Amino acid sequence: MAESIRMLSKNTVKFIKSLHQKKFRNQEQKFFVEGEKSVLEVLNSDFSVELIVATDTFLEKYENLISQSAGQVILATQNQLENLGQYQSNDSALAVVHMKSNSPFDFPKGNFVVGLDDVRDPGNLGTIIRIADWYGIKNLVFSPQTADFYNPKVIQSSMGSFTRVNFFYADLKDVFQKWDVPIYGAFLNGKNVHEMGRVAHGVILMGNESNGVSNELEKVVTDKVTIPGFGEAESLNVAIATAILCDNFKRLTVG
Amino acid sequence: MAESIRMLSKNTVKFIKSLHQKKFRNQEQKFFVEGEKSVLEVLNSDFSVELIVATDTFLEKYENLISQSAGQVILATQNQLENLGQYQSNDSALAVVHMKSNSPFDFPKGNFVVGLDDVRDPGNLGTIIRIADWYGIKNLVFSPQTADFYNPKVIQSSMGSFTRVNFFYADLKDVFQKWDVPIYGAFLNGKNVHEMGRVAHGVILMGNESNGVSNELEKVVTDKVTIPGFGEAESLNVAIATAILCDNFKRLTVG
Repeated sequence: MAESIRMLSKNTVKFIKSLHQKKFRNQEQKFFVEGEKSVLEVLNSDFSVELIVATDTFLEKYENLISQSAGQVILATQNQLENLGQYQSNDSALAVVHMKSNSPFDFPKGNFVVGLDDVRDPGNLGTIIRIADWYGIKNLVFSPQTADFYNPKVIQSSMGSFTRVNFFYADLKDVFQKWDVPIYGAFLNGKNVHEMGRVAHGVILMGNESNGVSNELEKVVTDKVTIPGFGEAESLNVAIATAILCDNFKRLTVG
Repeated sequence: MAESIRMLSKNTVKFIKSLHQKKFRNQEQKFFVEGEKSVLEVLNSDFSVELIVATDTFLEKYENLISQSAGQVILATQNQLENLGQYQSNDSALAVVHMKSNSPFDFPKGNFVVGLDDVRDPGNLGTIIRIADWYGIKNLVFSPQTADFYNPKVIQSSMGSFTRVNFFYADLKDVFQKWDVPIYGAFLNGKNVHEMGRVAHGVILMGNESNGVSNELEKVVTDKVTIPGFGEAESLNVAIATAILCDNFKRLTVG
């Protein structure tokens, strides 16, 4: 393998740094993933890896896995890696990966889809992806204004779960009308989720951090649901609320 | 009120900046709170406010509330405020507040206590305080190595809920043995929380971000509980897990 390893060039540095910006990610249809865990997850996934920039330690440790990848291998120091990505500390690797196409999927029968209406914070989006993966909810749909799935902070906070979910961006109203399944929207004035009966399937729809579900989308919500509060906090963070609703819906479908 | 308003002195700047550090907070037994919402919450709470540093806009808008506080009032510009605190943007106020004493409380009959065993991240601690407040769980106990309640990031991420909870730091093993109530510890190999029957009261015990509940404390756990996973994510963030357990326990006590 040694003969195929290149050194890090100025052009590659410039290219990877451009991928911090959504504009260039979309232009190139590529994004980057950093850190040992995430790079291993992406190498073991159905994502197509174009480039692996790694320290000699990482290259030796995962020689077999890397040799199975079609990605070009580039040797770098820890300092160089940290300069390329957003991690304060990265002594292992960074991978440049091809985006997947934005292809709509059919509604997955007997399961749930998490729908996000303008969830803007990348940390929230990444955390929600991790939660959905925990609950076996592998399909997500995002309104066009939702944070970019390929934002490095989304990738990071998903803790590897970004490799295990399907998603697409679309006008959610159109999608939901086509699917014809229950749309469970998170609202402050809905039905107490603790008092709901059995559920079969549907969309768990979460709204924007400040404004909740938009008025336009509210029209296609079939069931408003609410997390009961017992204290004085005014709200819950949207990722926390998603976790609680996923937990309740999975509980209500069991048996 | 005008005659009692002072200008910001170098000594006050130095003093407030020292409160970014736990060492000086403990020495002074004071901490700071910043931003409109949190400063209003603390002025409306049973915390004793020593100092209010605020812009003229804030002082005019909340003149009545401020005049009821025993705190010294200091006029500052937005730039000065941002220099004092950790917020990137603060056009309203910052307050210096007296810590409460670290006094143990009795177990609150018929309710729950959230116990944290070395939860180290201030953002996690603040989020957990907000969640506990949402669920009306007003009492928390922390192991000595848990993040500092008065850390500015804890105050910020609690979104005002820090004013509505009781807490103390102690050797949790001693506390739990004294209380003689069920200790529900979060473990990966416990009873599925979706399959539990009614619960009356107890401690919801969460462990460290990396290591979970310590071996020493595991000995006094009476019931190991687990959040069922349906997918491939290896774990959930501790604040997310706390939210899901609080939600389940409150559901199981209703009725």
